[in-house]
Amino acid sequence: MKVDHIGIAVRSLAEAKAFYEALGLACAGEEEVSGQKVRVAFFPAGDSRLELLESTDPEGPIGTFIARKGPGLHHLCLAVPRIREAMAALKARGYTLIDEEPKVGAGGHLVAFVHPKSTGGVLLELTERKTE
Amino acid sequence: MKVDHIGIAVRSLAEAKAFYEALGLACAGEEEVSGQKVRVAFFPAGDSRLELLESTDPEGPIGTFIARKGPGLHHLCLAVPRIREAMAALKARGYTLIDEEPKVGAGGHLVAFVHPKSTGGVLLELTERKTE
Repeated sequence: MKVDHIGIAVRSLAEAKAFYEALGLACAGEEEVSGQKVRVAFFPAGDSRLELLESTDPEGPIGTFIARKGPGLHHLCLAVPRIREAMAALKARGYTLIDEEPKVGAGGHLVAFVHPKSTGGVLLELTERKTE
Repeated sequence: MKVDHIGIAVRSLAEAKAFYEALGLACAGEEEVSGQKVRVAFFPAGDSRLELLESTDPEGPIGTFIARKGPGLHHLCLAVPRIREAMAALKARGYTLIDEEPKVGAGGHLVAFVHPKSTGGVLLELTERKTE
């Protein structure tokens, strides 16, 4: 189990990339995820990575997040060995999931979100990496 | 360079610990940091860790954060090989630091905060681990 990535909502991908590059991190790629209405830049850091998220639509999830709270830390993603087991363990203890079943996300990895009311305000994504 | 930890502001350490334990993480320790007016629980995850922060004083930094924004993701800490070099590189590019000089934090590690206006809204801590 590890921190897969930290999602950071940014107003400008170009400005945010310049900052993390000044710090010594290197961008490993950039892609548009049209379903989520974001453009994402990836910065590996140790066994985790930062995902910078720029909204491509003010009505999308990152656009509305920034309008409501301003840019900043958006979500935390933990990689678990077996996502269905992790989801069942949470449900058994009365926690609420946003996704009842894992979805296939980018790269073919399984993902599911836990409801922030169960995490104490954190938007928490779980992922089971395809290679594990 | 890696994600040293992710600081999460919680209303109740007991409730937040129960959630992350249900997910399969194990608490590696708990301590009160009176200077920061918080009680902290540590959950290692891969080469990083989650730090759950419960306020011990409504006037402290976590107490005021929760009053203003609610509980949730609070700060991100990146471990850099040489903190003074990282700070100088940021300053040379016009970014603003909260700390002009690194401070000695818990465990004797050097730490410094970058101003959120330079990071696009992220409260970013840099640390140089004593053992590195």
